[in-house]
Amino acid sequence: MAQQKKLVEAITSRDEDFAKWYTDIVKKAELIDYSGVKGCMVIRPYGYAIWENIQKDLDRRFKETGHENVYMPMFIPESLLQKEKDHVKGFAPEVAWVTQGGAEKLTERLCVRPTSEVLFCEHYAKIINSYRDLPKLYNQWCSVVRWEKTTRPFLRSSEFLWQEGHTMHETAEEAQEETMRMLHVYHDFYKETLAIPAVIGKKTDKEKFAGAEATYTIEPMMHNGVALQGGTSHYFGDGFARSFDITFTGRDNKLAYPHQTSWGVSTRLIGALIMVHSDDDGLVLPPKISPIQIAIIPIAMHKEGVLEKADSLYKRLKDEFRVKLDNSDQSPGWKFSQYEMKGVPVRIEIGPKDIENNQCVIVRRDTREKIVVSIDNLETAVRETLETMHNDMYNNALENLHEKTFVAKNHEEFLDIAQNKPGFIKAMWCGDSACEDKLKDETGGVKSRCIPFDEEHITDTCACCGKPAQHMVYWGKQY
Amino acid sequence: MAQQKKLVEAITSRDEDFAKWYTDIVKKAELIDYSGVKGCMVIRPYGYAIWENIQKDLDRRFKETGHENVYMPMFIPESLLQKEKDHVKGFAPEVAWVTQGGAEKLTERLCVRPTSEVLFCEHYAKIINSYRDLPKLYNQWCSVVRWEKTTRPFLRSSEFLWQEGHTMHETAEEAQEETMRMLHVYHDFYKETLAIPAVIGKKTDKEKFAGAEATYTIEPMMHNGVALQGGTSHYFGDGFARSFDITFTGRDNKLAYPHQTSWGVSTRLIGALIMVHSDDDGLVLPPKISPIQIAIIPIAMHKEGVLEKADSLYKRLKDEFRVKLDNSDQSPGWKFSQYEMKGVPVRIEIGPKDIENNQCVIVRRDTREKIVVSIDNLETAVRETLETMHNDMYNNALENLHEKTFVAKNHEEFLDIAQNKPGFIKAMWCGDSACEDKLKDETGGVKSRCIPFDEEHITDTCACCGKPAQHMVYWGKQY
Repeated sequence: MAQQKKLVEAITSRDEDFAKWYTDIVKKAELIDYSGVKGCMVIRPYGYAIWENIQKDLDRRFKETGHENVYMPMFIPESLLQKEKDHVKGFAPEVAWVTQGGAEKLTERLCVRPTSEVLFCEHYAKIINSYRDLPKLYNQWCSVVRWEKTTRPFLRSSEFLWQEGHTMHETAEEAQEETMRMLHVYHDFYKETLAIPAVIGKKTDKEKFAGAEATYTIEPMMHNGVALQGGTSHYFGDGFARSFDITFTGRDNKLAYPHQTSWGVSTRLIGALIMVHSDDDGLVLPPKISPIQIAIIPIAMHKEGVLEKADSLYKRLKDEFRVKLDNSDQSPGWKFSQYEMKGVPVRIEIGPKDIENNQCVIVRRDTREKIVVSIDNLETAVRETLETMHNDMYNNALENLHEKTFVAKNHEEFLDIAQNKPGFIKAMWCGDSACEDKLKDETGGVKSRCIPFDEEHITDTCACCGKPAQHMVYWGKQY
Repeated sequence: MAQQKKLVEAITSRDEDFAKWYTDIVKKAELIDYSGVKGCMVIRPYGYAIWENIQKDLDRRFKETGHENVYMPMFIPESLLQKEKDHVKGFAPEVAWVTQGGAEKLTERLCVRPTSEVLFCEHYAKIINSYRDLPKLYNQWCSVVRWEKTTRPFLRSSEFLWQEGHTMHETAEEAQEETMRMLHVYHDFYKETLAIPAVIGKKTDKEKFAGAEATYTIEPMMHNGVALQGGTSHYFGDGFARSFDITFTGRDNKLAYPHQTSWGVSTRLIGALIMVHSDDDGLVLPPKISPIQIAIIPIAMHKEGVLEKADSLYKRLKDEFRVKLDNSDQSPGWKFSQYEMKGVPVRIEIGPKDIENNQCVIVRRDTREKIVVSIDNLETAVRETLETMHNDMYNNALENLHEKTFVAKNHEEFLDIAQNKPGFIKAMWCGDSACEDKLKDETGGVKSRCIPFDEEHITDTCACCGKPAQHMVYWGKQY
């Protein structure tokens, strides 16, 4: 094992320097490359293949829930961005401005979309006239730009890829249902596809989206105890509709404003995958989104019959799984390390002795467990291994989330945990944003993550000011 | 029939005003909406679904030929764009410039990518070291921006969606093979999926891509005799590699420059679909990319058993085809017109009398032919109808291309055809770009389309200057 490790460049140990370990993985698993523009990244083939698998899965879920894809322009005229005042206040400080087109100076600046609420609203105003036109359930896959000062691949970049759903409904109730439906689509996707558990709840007013009435979030826990906003779903009420004069004739023949939602997840998901599942040998990818699910590695390749046998295994598996047969002239040890670095869930070793015994060896990426299986049962064994691996990865991540969740009954405990135990803090809160500010200042950045849907009663009083508590809140530092 | 027409807003007749007919279709088939930024369009669900089907088909062809998808930043620093001098000369006049990020004025302007050669080169310089790293076969799906003065939906817009392949090879021969391979992938895709024939050939030096050694093109013919550049594939030689200092250690252990290609098609394809196939009742979509392939329309819906029967047809077809059962409360005539406007290839009518006779009626969108089929053979009948329709659409388009191709033996004939017969002109050319300029000026815009791969010998002399001819060229006005 020690010798194999030397075959690929070592990466920084996760426990030693989490941040460096993260960037080592991102680079050495060939997910991204840096570009000449600060905070913009090149997503390399292996990284992009992960994103394509994420897209395919989510897009199916969106379409199954009745959504249609559209494409909006990437530019927003300054006057359009300013139509909803909370929204522009939230985004104007971090947008990129186009001021020149060809040789001509523009009469109005255009911002590169940081999000597309205003573009959807402008369009909806034109196509919504009657209750018969509702609901409108649109989604868009695109890139957006937010001029970030400090950037980190996938987690915070000036340009990133995402999807943004924007829907319009006849009633507030329907829009609220949609907000919840899509939050749960994300939550299910995290669990079923990414093998990542997450706390699910509502953002406090302070942390909600610029222009929203309510923001809901899923919050997974990274291996190092830092939280990540994993996906958000917003209920807008009819605020934007009023600002953009979107009206429809209702069933009662009266003019009314429709109610709106938006929801999105981004390439940040790939950051979550890395920080939840991976280890000191590189990526560990959940089977459902791994670009390669199985790497077949022939042992003693030059021996008669080995390559033929490896190829026959490949042919049996290739229609059901994403499988790669590596018959390149590198050593098996080098190949093992390579596919470990890339997080390939399962490798299959097949050599002369295996062939003699009508068997092969399945090795799991997460546990390194070696399973000797009869070649006759190969498909079943692989299928079961991938499924078990997915479940084990989920359960390990859940254990990490539980281990890194602490209860603070009062201010002193809160500060002590914030100081010494990275993770979520569950604590009561009075509802006043002044306490959020104070706790953030005192702890160097612990913020409210969400009011969970399954609130517990810890104490009667706010863990900051001691006044009567209104809610239990999850708190934590975030990426 | 006359009465049905009135049920939907009429569109301008194609023969009366082709340009207005085109924009009517684009709007009334709900493909696009205009946006607040000049030349930027909203691609609506039906238009985007066509693009998704195009993407799916092309992406499969790219992956089958060994290509991988990546994502490059949307911004190019001005100094990077300037590294290849022919390239920057071609694109600088039509790019959008970002000069401000958040509150801060940028020290260097960034252009929004008009195409990504320079970004790929910057990346390739970092990851190509040895002949073992070659070939690199990358493709990107993204949006690009070119600041156009006169715009038209899908055909010429300031922002459009496309794919751009960028590949690097060990030898010139390999890169040239790739250039041809991808040109033929496009040509096959046009024929097999879009049912569009095209002339295939090489651009003259005057018309080639900024920075390329050679540009190859496929040129379909629109219904009105105007040509369209349908897709291009470029061979770059090692010009960019030299400008960007991309080198690799060859098999002979010496440093060498790799050879490069790029190739792309865009949402302009949708414009071609409209202008080749559609008619005075709206879109006519080839079955392979139509978002809905079959619309089932129950007749006398309130009669017992009709809806049930329609639903049973739907269930039989839905796994093999993209099928929609329309049981809304609109009249059948209104529905007929709607699905005609949207170009749905086949509608199935099913009413009480049909049920009595164990039959249904299949109506083709292109010919309006009504085919009465036994319900027992429904799947086969639909399958055959769609296939026949695809072939007929291709053959009709081919006939149009032939009918609108004229031969000019000399200057006088050239000018006469250019004046009176819209279409391609086949004529000999001396090889001098001065003759291209002259013909363009004299004819108000007839340009060389390509030197076809299957050149014919028409005369010995250039149709412009009368000097000895080097090539036969297809000439024409273009979108």
